[in-house]
Amino acid sequence: MLVQLSVADFNRELGSNSPAPGGGSVAALSGALGAELISMVCKLSIGKKNYEQFHDQLSEALQRADALANSLLGRIDLDTEAFNDVMAAFKMPKEPEEARKARSDAIQRGYKQAVQSPLGIARECLTVLRTAEKMLGKSNANALSDLGVASLQAHAGLEGAIMNVKINIPSIKDEKFVTETSSEISRLLEEGGALRDKIYEYVSKNICPELR
Amino acid sequence: MLVQLSVADFNRELGSNSPAPGGGSVAALSGALGAELISMVCKLSIGKKNYEQFHDQLSEALQRADALANSLLGRIDLDTEAFNDVMAAFKMPKEPEEARKARSDAIQRGYKQAVQSPLGIARECLTVLRTAEKMLGKSNANALSDLGVASLQAHAGLEGAIMNVKINIPSIKDEKFVTETSSEISRLLEEGGALRDKIYEYVSKNICPELR
Repeated sequence: MLVQLSVADFNRELGSNSPAPGGGSVAALSGALGAELISMVCKLSIGKKNYEQFHDQLSEALQRADALANSLLGRIDLDTEAFNDVMAAFKMPKEPEEARKARSDAIQRGYKQAVQSPLGIARECLTVLRTAEKMLGKSNANALSDLGVASLQAHAGLEGAIMNVKINIPSIKDEKFVTETSSEISRLLEEGGALRDKIYEYVSKNICPELR
Repeated sequence: MLVQLSVADFNRELGSNSPAPGGGSVAALSGALGAELISMVCKLSIGKKNYEQFHDQLSEALQRADALANSLLGRIDLDTEAFNDVMAAFKMPKEPEEARKARSDAIQRGYKQAVQSPLGIARECLTVLRTAEKMLGKSNANALSDLGVASLQAHAGLEGAIMNVKINIPSIKDEKFVTETSSEISRLLEEGGALRDKIYEYVSKNICPELR
């Protein structure tokens, strides 16, 4: 499993001449890093006097962040598997006619999975952003840059995952699937971008007002 | 060393109730992931017929990406050490007067290092973005989404590192240092943002023209 590799070895594997793991797995890791930073910020806030009044919201954010981090870490491997499944389908026999049909069906199933996998990453990255946004003004001010970095990582994960959705969309023949996916992509990018901008603005204003 | 932890354990450590590792180390990792993706895209392009004419540029990009990835991986630990040094300085004795002065100097040195460390991360993330931009149209089109994710990760690393610079700036008394750092921050953000936008636009247009 990729997540069992050391950080150094994961990076080496990523930079190797094999197309997997690639951008999809990196997007999942980026979202997981964002979720873990939120978890840390929650832990640095819960139990502190200044943030007592936000205890319930922070506890809820912590729970959500931990679940998101776990799920996104799992998606690092899942996305690489989805890619490998498409590659395996292309290696199926093209003859006779029946085999050709089975191969073509497997390729289409593979591509749909290679769209649904990063789409799942993008959805969870959006939830990371929503979680971060709810914590503005309610969490440890000394860790505000960490909340900012959490948001940047989640947003990079969201946009990166969607690039991985888009590169596979043209291979899919199911028009209904393409239409639905396209409209979901637009919604994810729009909400994600707005949340990122809002958090960036808040963090910049509050960590160093003079350099805003 | 943090980079010797497994990806899963690094994430767990990040999400713990200790402020280090935090956003600065994540920014360095994000830049390293971007550099490794560039390295992969170079390797998937060098030796392929369609990209023969770009052999020299791709080889140069590969060399640069590998060096950046190594350096940024090292900065994951360095940034956490810089933070710990500040914390250690705060624990120095405040009396007698001589010790007070030594403590205050150590705190200032610590904060300068806690600014210079993420500033170094931001500079290298910018170089990752410059390297990615030079590869547009000259590298494997099947890995274009990976080049896009590389750029998103490097840009998130750049902006995240700068948040870590900014949160420490108000603690620094050396005005010349603050002025020079502030103007460098502006340049880094401006060039980094422009490169990110250019790469994003190119990638979006070319991976899936209909969903642009």
